[in-house]
Amino acid sequence: MNVNEKKYAIGVDYGTNSVRALIVDLADGRELGTSVANYPSGDLGIILDFAQPTLARQSPRDYIDCFMTAVRGAVEQAKSVDSSFDPKDVAGIGIDTTGSTPIPVDSDGVPLAFQEKFKDVPAANAWLWKDHTSIEEAESITRRVRELGNGYLDKCGGIYSSEWYWAKIWHCLRENPEVFDAAYSWVELADFIPAYITGNMKPETLARGICPAGHKAMWDADRGGLPSAEFWESLEPKLVKYLDHYAKETKRADQLAGFLTVEVAAKTGLAEGTPVAVGAFDCHMGAVGAGVSPGTLVRIVGTSACDITTLPLDANLQAIPGLCGIVPGSVVPGAYGIEAGQSAVGDIYRWFERSLAPARYTVGGNTLYELEQDAAKLLPGESGLVALDWNNGNRCILVDQALTGAIIGTTLSTSAAEIYRALIEGTAYGARAIIERMEEYGVKINEIVICGGIAEKSPTIMQIFANVWNRPLKISRSSQTCALGASLFGAVAGGAFANVEEAQRRTVAYKSTTYQPQSDAAAVYEKLYAVYKTLHDAFGVQGTQVDLYPIMKELVAIRDSVRGTRR
Amino acid sequence: MNVNEKKYAIGVDYGTNSVRALIVDLADGRELGTSVANYPSGDLGIILDFAQPTLARQSPRDYIDCFMTAVRGAVEQAKSVDSSFDPKDVAGIGIDTTGSTPIPVDSDGVPLAFQEKFKDVPAANAWLWKDHTSIEEAESITRRVRELGNGYLDKCGGIYSSEWYWAKIWHCLRENPEVFDAAYSWVELADFIPAYITGNMKPETLARGICPAGHKAMWDADRGGLPSAEFWESLEPKLVKYLDHYAKETKRADQLAGFLTVEVAAKTGLAEGTPVAVGAFDCHMGAVGAGVSPGTLVRIVGTSACDITTLPLDANLQAIPGLCGIVPGSVVPGAYGIEAGQSAVGDIYRWFERSLAPARYTVGGNTLYELEQDAAKLLPGESGLVALDWNNGNRCILVDQALTGAIIGTTLSTSAAEIYRALIEGTAYGARAIIERMEEYGVKINEIVICGGIAEKSPTIMQIFANVWNRPLKISRSSQTCALGASLFGAVAGGAFANVEEAQRRTVAYKSTTYQPQSDAAAVYEKLYAVYKTLHDAFGVQGTQVDLYPIMKELVAIRDSVRGTRR
Repeated sequence: MNVNEKKYAIGVDYGTNSVRALIVDLADGRELGTSVANYPSGDLGIILDFAQPTLARQSPRDYIDCFMTAVRGAVEQAKSVDSSFDPKDVAGIGIDTTGSTPIPVDSDGVPLAFQEKFKDVPAANAWLWKDHTSIEEAESITRRVRELGNGYLDKCGGIYSSEWYWAKIWHCLRENPEVFDAAYSWVELADFIPAYITGNMKPETLARGICPAGHKAMWDADRGGLPSAEFWESLEPKLVKYLDHYAKETKRADQLAGFLTVEVAAKTGLAEGTPVAVGAFDCHMGAVGAGVSPGTLVRIVGTSACDITTLPLDANLQAIPGLCGIVPGSVVPGAYGIEAGQSAVGDIYRWFERSLAPARYTVGGNTLYELEQDAAKLLPGESGLVALDWNNGNRCILVDQALTGAIIGTTLSTSAAEIYRALIEGTAYGARAIIERMEEYGVKINEIVICGGIAEKSPTIMQIFANVWNRPLKISRSSQTCALGASLFGAVAGGAFANVEEAQRRTVAYKSTTYQPQSDAAAVYEKLYAVYKTLHDAFGVQGTQVDLYPIMKELVAIRDSVRGTRR
Repeated sequence: MNVNEKKYAIGVDYGTNSVRALIVDLADGRELGTSVANYPSGDLGIILDFAQPTLARQSPRDYIDCFMTAVRGAVEQAKSVDSSFDPKDVAGIGIDTTGSTPIPVDSDGVPLAFQEKFKDVPAANAWLWKDHTSIEEAESITRRVRELGNGYLDKCGGIYSSEWYWAKIWHCLRENPEVFDAAYSWVELADFIPAYITGNMKPETLARGICPAGHKAMWDADRGGLPSAEFWESLEPKLVKYLDHYAKETKRADQLAGFLTVEVAAKTGLAEGTPVAVGAFDCHMGAVGAGVSPGTLVRIVGTSACDITTLPLDANLQAIPGLCGIVPGSVVPGAYGIEAGQSAVGDIYRWFERSLAPARYTVGGNTLYELEQDAAKLLPGESGLVALDWNNGNRCILVDQALTGAIIGTTLSTSAAEIYRALIEGTAYGARAIIERMEEYGVKINEIVICGGIAEKSPTIMQIFANVWNRPLKISRSSQTCALGASLFGAVAGGAFANVEEAQRRTVAYKSTTYQPQSDAAAVYEKLYAVYKTLHDAFGVQGTQVDLYPIMKELVAIRDSVRGTRR
C-alpha cells in the first residue's frame, strides 16, 4: 500500500453549524490534527425567517471562509504535534457535507449569493438540508411519478422529500422568481466545495457525485441520468433548463474531482496540486469511516441521524418504501448504498435544552449532561410518557416533513428529566421503525455502529438505544467519523490505497465499550414501542382508523408496574 | 335586614394549599380583614408518595391549627382597620372546603390521624380531593350502578369519580385495612370543620351538608339517603357499617351546624356562641359569592376549576352525562345546584412553571407573570400547538382520572411561552367542552363570571378564555369569592339576612372590566377547538375510531395562515 509514499490524508466535514478538518495518518488511522470553524452567519450558521419557520439557509461565503480556517488550523496542529508532518505528504483531500443542500450559481458556477444584490436574499443562498419550505413541490413530484408509474422514486423510498434538490429548486421559482431566473444551475454543497477548491466550477463540467445525484436528484445511470425533460415539462417547464446545465455523467467519491488550486493552497498551508476526491454526503463517508459493510448498519447521530448500510450489487434488492435511497456505488463502489435517517435527533435534545430546560440544569453550563444524569436515574416506562420524534418532520419511514412532535402522558408530577428521557426514547423508537423496515425487506442488520459526538458523550443515551433496539451497539473509535471517512476517500482518490475496503482495514476501529441490551429494560421498551407505533401510524399514516383510548391507560399501567418494582 | 343588628360575617375557605379567613361588612360586602395560613405538612401542604404518584393526603391537624391562625389573623386585621370592629357583632361563620376530602374518624368523630400510631400513616389522614388512588373502586361503583340500573348516578353525570367519598373509603380497605377497620366513620372536610368548632363531632349527629352528601356520597333524599346496604353488600360488605354511622338527614348550608365553642373562641378572638353554618364545597359557596343564579355560570379557577350554575327546581331537568352533579338545594335553597369542573387548571400552569420554565423566566421570581407576558405576544394558532389538559385526569365531561396530558405539534422552534400558552388554551378548550355539554342538555348559559386569583392577576388568560368560549366574561369584585360566599351563608344561618338571594343583592359586585371575545381570535379558536375535540374524543372516548392524520396538517395550516397575517 501507500503506492506513492504519501502518508496522510485530509477529510473536511461540513456539518449543520460548522466545518471540521481532520488530518489522518494512513498507517493506522491516527488523527494528527483537527480544527473546527463555526459558520459566522445567522443563528448558529443558519439564516432563519420568523414568518417561515421551516426556512433554513446558509451562506456559501461561510463555507469557503470556514474551509480555509479549519484546514489551516488542522495543518498547524498537525505540525505542532508531529514536526515531521509535511503538507506535501498529503495523498488527497476528501469532502463530505450535509445534503441535500443545493446552491444557486451563475454560468461560471459562482454562487449568486456572491453578488452584492443577492447577498442578503435567503433564496440566493444555500438551501440547507433541513429547509422544509418545499413540501408542496415534493408532494407534486411524488404524485406525478406515481401517476406516470415511471419508477423514478423506486430507489428513493417511493416519496420525494421536501429536503431534496428538485423540490427546493422548484420552490425557489415561487419564493423568489428573480433568483430562479438568475440561477444558471444548482450545485450541491458536496459538489461545490471540491469544485471551488480545484477551480473546476463550470456547472456542465464540475464533478457531480453519484451520492448527491443518485440520492437527491433522481439521477439513474440505467435511465440515462436525470429525470427527462418531458417529466419536468409536465410539472413546471421552467425546470427543464437545468437538465442541460448538469454533468453528462456522475462520479464516485473514490474518483478525482481535481487538484488544489494555488490560491487555496496558499490560504490553507497545503501543497498546490494536492488531489481532491469527488464529494459525498457526510453520512455516506461517515459510514465508511465507521466500517460500513453488508450486514453492518452505521448510524451517524448528530443534529439529525443518518443510517447507512450496503448490500452487494448482486443481491436481489427490491424497492423499500420509506427509506431515503438505494443507489449503486453511492457509499462504496461495487455495492448498493442504502440510506435512511431521521430529520432530528440531537436537534430535539438541543431544542429541549434551549427552550425548556429549567434553571437548575442551565446554571452550570453543561445542561445536556445534567439532564442526562437525571434521566439516567429513571427506569424505562416509569415516566408514563411517550414522545413522537417529529419536531423536524419525519424523514423515514413516513417521509413527511409536515409532521410535528408530540408528548403524550404528562401529569402534574412530570419532570423535565422525564420529558428529556422521553424525547431520547422517541428518537430511539423512530430509529427502530427504520431498522424494522429494512429487515422487513430483506436487509438483515447483524450489528449496529454508532458514531457522532453523542455516541461518545452520552452513555445513557447509548444504553437506551441498545435497549430500545434490543441489539448490541458498537461505538466508532474516531469521534470524527465523517471527516475520517472523507479522508479515506481523499486517500483512495489520491492513490494511497487500492480501494475503500483496504482503507477501512487499515484505519477503522471501535471503542472498547459495546452496549449490550438489558433484558428487563428491553421488555418494557417492547411494550412502549408498540404504543409509539400505534401513535406513529395514527398521526402519520393517512387513513389509519384506530381507537387510541387504550393508549393512555397502557402508559399508566406500564408506569405503575415499573414504579412498583422500585419498592 | 340585619334583623339582629349584627354587622359582620366570617367566611373560612379551605383551599388545596392553605386556608383563608375573611371578615365581611354585611352592609356592602366590604372586606375588613383577611388572613391566610399555609398547611405546614408535606409538599405545599400535601402528603405525597413517590411510588404512588396519584396519592394526595393532608393532615387534619393542619386544618385545625390553620383555622385558628387564619381566623385570629383576620380578626386582628379587622380591628386594626376599623377600631369599631367587635367580634360580638359577627352574625355567623361559614365554612367552605375542597372536596370530596373525607377524613377517617373514631366513634367520637376524632380523626384517626390524631392518634400517635396513625399520625404518619397516609391512609389515616385526609384524602384530598385530587387523590386519584381509587380509580378501580370508582369504576366498580359505576359498573355496578349501570348493571343494576338503579339511577344512583343520574344526578352525578353517570360516572362515579375516583375523587369521591365512597371510592376513597373503599380504596382504604385495600391500601390499609388497619385504618379501614379503625375508622368508625368518614367525615368530609366541609362537615368536619363546623363539627369541630361547634363541638358537635359525633359521626351520627354532626351536621352533614347536602352539598358534600349529594354531590359526592350519592345521598338522595327521594331515595331515603345513602345508597342501600344491599348495594354495598354486592360490592364490598365491609362498607355497610358506615351507613349506620352517618346522619339520618342532611342540612343545607344556610342552616345552623351549631355555635362556636369556648375553646375555639379563645384561640381565635371570636365570641363564644357565634353561629356556625353547615359547610359546603368551596366552589358552591364561591358561586354564591360571585352571584350565581339561573343563566349565570360561575367558574372558580384555582388549582382546579369548578363550574356552578343553578336552575329552578321546577325546570324539567334531565340527567346530564359527564357533569359532577345535579343536587337540589346544594348551592342555593330552592334550586338545582349544577356542578362541573376540571381536575387541574392553575395546577397545570404551576406544573409548567415548576418543571419546565427556563431560567430566563425564573430568575426574577415572578415566573408565571413573565411567561404570561411572552404568551400574550403570540397570536392564537401561531404556535401550531394544541394541548390536552388532562395532567390530573379529566373530571368533566369524560370523568376519567386515568387520562393524562398531551402536547401535540412541537417543532424545533417551539418556545416555552408557546407551550405555556398552549396549556392555557388547553384548559380553555376543556372548559368549553363543559359549557357545550350543559347547553346540549338545555342549561342555557347567558353569562360567565370568573373568580379566583387567576381572574385578577392574568388578563391574558381571561382574554384567551373569552376568545375560546366566544362569550363575554365578568370578573368577581372580590378576590376571595369562596370565603365571601361562605361568610354569606354564615350570615344567613346567623339570621342577618332572610335568605341567600338577599345576601347576594347586598354584597355581590363585579370588576369594571368585562372581557369581550375578539372575533378574529374566536374564529381561529373555533378551528383549534375542533382539533382539540377530535383529540379529546380519540384519546378519551372508548371505541372512537378516527383518522388523526389530518390533525398535524391542520395545526400547521392554521399556524402558517396566522403567521402570514403578521407580515
